[in-house]
Amino acid sequence: MTAGPLAPDRTDPEGAVAAAVTRVSNWGRWGEDDVKGTLNLITDEHRRAAAGLVRRGRVFSLAQQFSVDGPQKGWRRRTNPVHTMLDTGTDAEAGVQGFPHGIGGADDVVAMPLQCSTQWDGLGHIFDHGRAWNGRRAGAVVTSLGDGVTGIETVAADFAGRGVLLDVGRLFGDDPAGTGGELPDGFAITPEHLDATCAAQGLEVGAGDLLLVRTGQYGRVLREGWGDYAGGPAPGMSFRTADWLHAHDVAAVATDTWGFEVRPNEFDVAFQPLHQVVIPNMGLFVGEMWALEELAADCAADGVHEFLLVAAPLPVTGAVGAPLNPLALK
Amino acid sequence: MTAGPLAPDRTDPEGAVAAAVTRVSNWGRWGEDDVKGTLNLITDEHRRAAAGLVRRGRVFSLAQQFSVDGPQKGWRRRTNPVHTMLDTGTDAEAGVQGFPHGIGGADDVVAMPLQCSTQWDGLGHIFDHGRAWNGRRAGAVVTSLGDGVTGIETVAADFAGRGVLLDVGRLFGDDPAGTGGELPDGFAITPEHLDATCAAQGLEVGAGDLLLVRTGQYGRVLREGWGDYAGGPAPGMSFRTADWLHAHDVAAVATDTWGFEVRPNEFDVAFQPLHQVVIPNMGLFVGEMWALEELAADCAADGVHEFLLVAAPLPVTGAVGAPLNPLALK
Amino acid sequence: MTAGPLAPDRTDPEGAVAAAVTRVSNWGRWGEDDVKGTLNLITDEHRRAAAGLVRRGRVFSLAQQFSVDGPQKGWRRRTNPVHTMLDTGTDAEAGVQGFPHGIGGADDVVAMPLQCSTQWDGLGHIFDHGRAWNGRRAGAVVTSLGDGVTGIETVAADFAGRGVLLDVGRLFGDDPAGTGGELPDGFAITPEHLDATCAAQGLEVGAGDLLLVRTGQYGRVLREGWGDYAGGPAPGMSFRTADWLHAHDVAAVATDTWGFEVRPNEFDVAFQPLHQVVIPNMGLFVGEMWALEELAADCAADGVHEFLLVAAPLPVTGAVGAPLNPLALK
Amino acid sequence: MTAGPLAPDRTDPEGAVAAAVTRVSNWGRWGEDDVKGTLNLITDEHRRAAAGLVRRGRVFSLAQQFSVDGPQKGWRRRTNPVHTMLDTGTDAEAGVQGFPHGIGGADDVVAMPLQCSTQWDGLGHIFDHGRAWNGRRAGAVVTSLGDGVTGIETVAADFAGRGVLLDVGRLFGDDPAGTGGELPDGFAITPEHLDATCAAQGLEVGAGDLLLVRTGQYGRVLREGWGDYAGGPAPGMSFRTADWLHAHDVAAVATDTWGFEVRPNEFDVAFQPLHQVVIPNMGLFVGEMWALEELAADCAADGVHEFLLVAAPLPVTGAVGAPLNPLALK
Repeated sequence: MTAGPLAPDRTDPEGAVAAAVTRVSNWGRWGEDDVKGTLNLITDEHRRAAAGLVRRGRVFSLAQQFSVDGPQKGWRRRTNPVHTMLDTGTDAEAGVQGFPHGIGGADDVVAMPLQCSTQWDGLGHIFDHGRAWNGRRAGAVVTSLGDGVTGIETVAADFAGRGVLLDVGRLFGDDPAGTGGELPDGFAITPEHLDATCAAQGLEVGAGDLLLVRTGQYGRVLREGWGDYAGGPAPGMSFRTADWLHAHDVAAVATDTWGFEVRPNEFDVAFQPLHQVVIPNMGLFVGEMWALEELAADCAADGVHEFLLVAAPLPVTGAVGAPLNPLALK
Repeated sequence: MTAGPLAPDRTDPEGAVAAAVTRVSNWGRWGEDDVKGTLNLITDEHRRAAAGLVRRGRVFSLAQQFSVDGPQKGWRRRTNPVHTMLDTGTDAEAGVQGFPHGIGGADDVVAMPLQCSTQWDGLGHIFDHGRAWNGRRAGAVVTSLGDGVTGIETVAADFAGRGVLLDVGRLFGDDPAGTGGELPDGFAITPEHLDATCAAQGLEVGAGDLLLVRTGQYGRVLREGWGDYAGGPAPGMSFRTADWLHAHDVAAVATDTWGFEVRPNEFDVAFQPLHQVVIPNMGLFVGEMWALEELAADCAADGVHEFLLVAAPLPVTGAVGAPLNPLALK
Repeated sequence: MTAGPLAPDRTDPEGAVAAAVTRVSNWGRWGEDDVKGTLNLITDEHRRAAAGLVRRGRVFSLAQQFSVDGPQKGWRRRTNPVHTMLDTGTDAEAGVQGFPHGIGGADDVVAMPLQCSTQWDGLGHIFDHGRAWNGRRAGAVVTSLGDGVTGIETVAADFAGRGVLLDVGRLFGDDPAGTGGELPDGFAITPEHLDATCAAQGLEVGAGDLLLVRTGQYGRVLREGWGDYAGGPAPGMSFRTADWLHAHDVAAVATDTWGFEVRPNEFDVAFQPLHQVVIPNMGLFVGEMWALEELAADCAADGVHEFLLVAAPLPVTGAVGAPLNPLALK
Repeated sequence: MTAGPLAPDRTDPEGAVAAAVTRVSNWGRWGEDDVKGTLNLITDEHRRAAAGLVRRGRVFSLAQQFSVDGPQKGWRRRTNPVHTMLDTGTDAEAGVQGFPHGIGGADDVVAMPLQCSTQWDGLGHIFDHGRAWNGRRAGAVVTSLGDGVTGIETVAADFAGRGVLLDVGRLFGDDPAGTGGELPDGFAITPEHLDATCAAQGLEVGAGDLLLVRTGQYGRVLREGWGDYAGGPAPGMSFRTADWLHAHDVAAVATDTWGFEVRPNEFDVAFQPLHQVVIPNMGLFVGEMWALEELAADCAADGVHEFLLVAAPLPVTGAVGAPLNPLALK
């Protein structure tokens, strides 16, 4: 079992972040000009092997809904998607569209925050004391024009490889509704939990893997309603997992929660300190609000928790985050 | 070689559409309640076999840019994406964000037509005389609230399988800039061209395949600027290919052009008549504005034009079209 | 005192609407082609006289805020405005904008429902059994392209005239916080209340007036938070006031509430039945979510409840409603 | 006639701006905390007198259209408004809305840059060497959250007073289509032109006036199409008018052009240098893209070029610019 760091001093998140950064920073690891961070860890050979995991041909979408009925409540102007129609079937049927030979059409637009639903955090999403990934000045990377250096389009082709699901919720959670196990809000997933889950599932997490960690919270909100899913208390990754993620050299990590890390955070006064360690310093891509219920049920049923994961972000130029529809193939 | 239908009467698109529909309609083929159309043709076995095509582990993004510098010019209110920032690195660096322990963040929103760049047309996108896919009334499918029946979210997990690139541009086009061959605007790709390309490439297109047809026009606009890419003259599929697509039972088809079919269309007065045949009547998913240049160059180099294609639409609830970032794995 | 109609049968809103329509319909009154409805009642002479009401030169904005912190909760996809920056002062100060000679700039965009805050309902906003103002078919007026007949731009120059404030809240409400009187939620303002307020204020409402009715609910939400301001219970106009509004030939009427009419509505099962009578049938323009507190305090102080009101809608082409910043000059 | 400054050195816009600022700066004039700039010059007495100018009761909207068919071409992400429907009459007529007792509705949203059409520039719109109005740091005023100091909502009630139209186009322009006189693109309106127009029209411009300067360019684009109206060559105010505007203490100034000042600007390499002088340094509000044709024709006909102008900006919280529908009452 990996020896994790001790729990940090609750009163000193800034010190804890600084200490963790000394252990896990990847600045310079892939050269000064690097914009891909941990995605460098996925090799062609890794991807070739991952394709070999497709044994049954089953496919699972890991996307939550993108709709006005989503969880967002306006935190920092994050709304749910507003989807409106430019043309409708009602209009076509009413014969008001003016097209020839009986053709009719419907068309639509959306206005949405890029991180309103299932998403990747880009490397320009979080800064540590004014520094972005690889040591760049935050203001030299992300202006009002967007992320001119590490915009999500720079990694448009990179998110494909071996996916591994660690179903921590199933191993350590309760199962109140027979949905497979759910961690309570505030439950911090530690390196020890991750190791135990690997052991229970009979697999190891290795370099270049796309790691999915299921807490089960999303199953709970599917059953009970969104509540404070967007920004409220939640199970999630302990601050201490920064070292574990670094030691295992994962290429990216995603959870079924809004915020990836446990909430409330493990400090008296803090805001997403694990993000501060892993995104700008490790160059790690973090996924949030993924729908893992159906995949997890299948993995529990057949005992296979690895698969080909293709998780291509919508490449909005200069975006610091990106919505996506991840597909897992088993 | 497949015997294609004769060229239709240029003066009678409505008659030509009606005649084609009698030959290629799939209404009822997968039951009255079907919402997946030709995606029903992709089976688990098909997907399993497709994964076996990943031999080198190379991956290609087939997405064009999603940016305000895109090709849209306002046709029917289709603009380019407007990407704006909710928080920036400049702000973080200036210390005005008010977050604790030195964390800073950037966040963003986008407003965009769902078909402004690389996209799938959903089955609710086009109607034939007021009828949508499977014979439903257009007005019973798509209202101002969106597509309540065949919204793109219903096929969120379906676009993964064997991809086949038919590089018609390379076989039949000129190569003015050494970019691999480009068909001129107005060039209609016929069933005969498709068959010849299959033969030249040494492959067959079969049931459940995700077919990509390269005209080379996108390479030209990359070199020369967008011009009238969005809605102007273009090479593309002949109206006559409806039968070919039906005979080969492809699950979906995409091109590197704005409008899939040849423009000007092959009738004196018409608007996208091939759409009218294949979307509402065949239940065929059509992709447009795909970036095929890099993939095509690789296929030309190694002679392998088949691959695993994972082309997951962003599942905006009720959408009649969907942006995406398709990944091809070879 | 005006003799108002009796309270309608609570179980039959459809019958009540139909009966009221027979009494108050203005269809055809200003010709078949009319698009201005009751705004026809404002004459140049009326406006000239209204300007004479400006005695002190004081001006009051009657607009609520247009911000993401507004009252909207997503009902029928009505969100609060999302205001984002295209350029910022932080960027300018950081020197990243690339403009010459030391000039810097900030620029911004907004995405918002046209009825998210202080607004006029346009004549295309409400239909009665598929009929819009003046008897037109709803589907011939408002399609996905907007209101092609009575779009708000057709009355861009019309909302200026004598404004009259009837402070019903002050006369009939409690004054829990010394803010001038507030009607409780569910309080139906009847014709009798309107007449009594006219009498108490010493004025009459006449043809062409722009009538403002203060309930005081907005003062309450300013003090206590939005709560269910957008769509919840509220004081407001009784269904019975349709006749009073018609008899007095007001050009438009606005309240400080979300929905103009009392909520819950005065029927067992109903949705905004007074709208159904007055907008499509009378051609009456209805304003909602106006900020009347400051003006009302001034009117109470000087005893003058009439003024020049300039309430120009933002003329979004084809809009069925329009945000505005009404100014009252006393 | 006012003695204007000499034409500045074409090669030194930065020096010219600095020199002009020494002459016209209003920093500190209304106190350190001021956010209203030149609007302080409108007094109650001024407004009272302005109301007395309403002699006929005629009203004119000075707003251009707010539609997708507007002039914007994407400069710095400024698009035309995208207006979409949330509900339509077609849907109401088709009976798919689900409302009771025969009521139906239409509703809509808009996404638009705040300066896409008829607008006021707010004081946070332009900076001079990183400084905003009254000497504040640009980055302390306008961040990604908007203008937290001089947001347009702070002057929601201020834009009402005496309007004066100086029809320079009619006096100095050609009249190719009988539309009243149009200045050619590149025509710089100097202090001498303004004085001559005052003299010809028999009026003086005084403190607190809302000045409208007609070039006639908008009449030309109405006739010929937008062309490069948004950002291209245009007649407009000479850089030298900064002193004239300051000497006359106008409260605000607006033109019928995209950019207020003459374009190309009067320097070899420059971008809107007059803005840099008057907005952050004088605290002057600048209006652009106003529709002055109808009002100007009326003024020419009756010889009266003064009126009550009510020009209330839509008070989007934190906005650095604001759309509006100005009404002039004569």
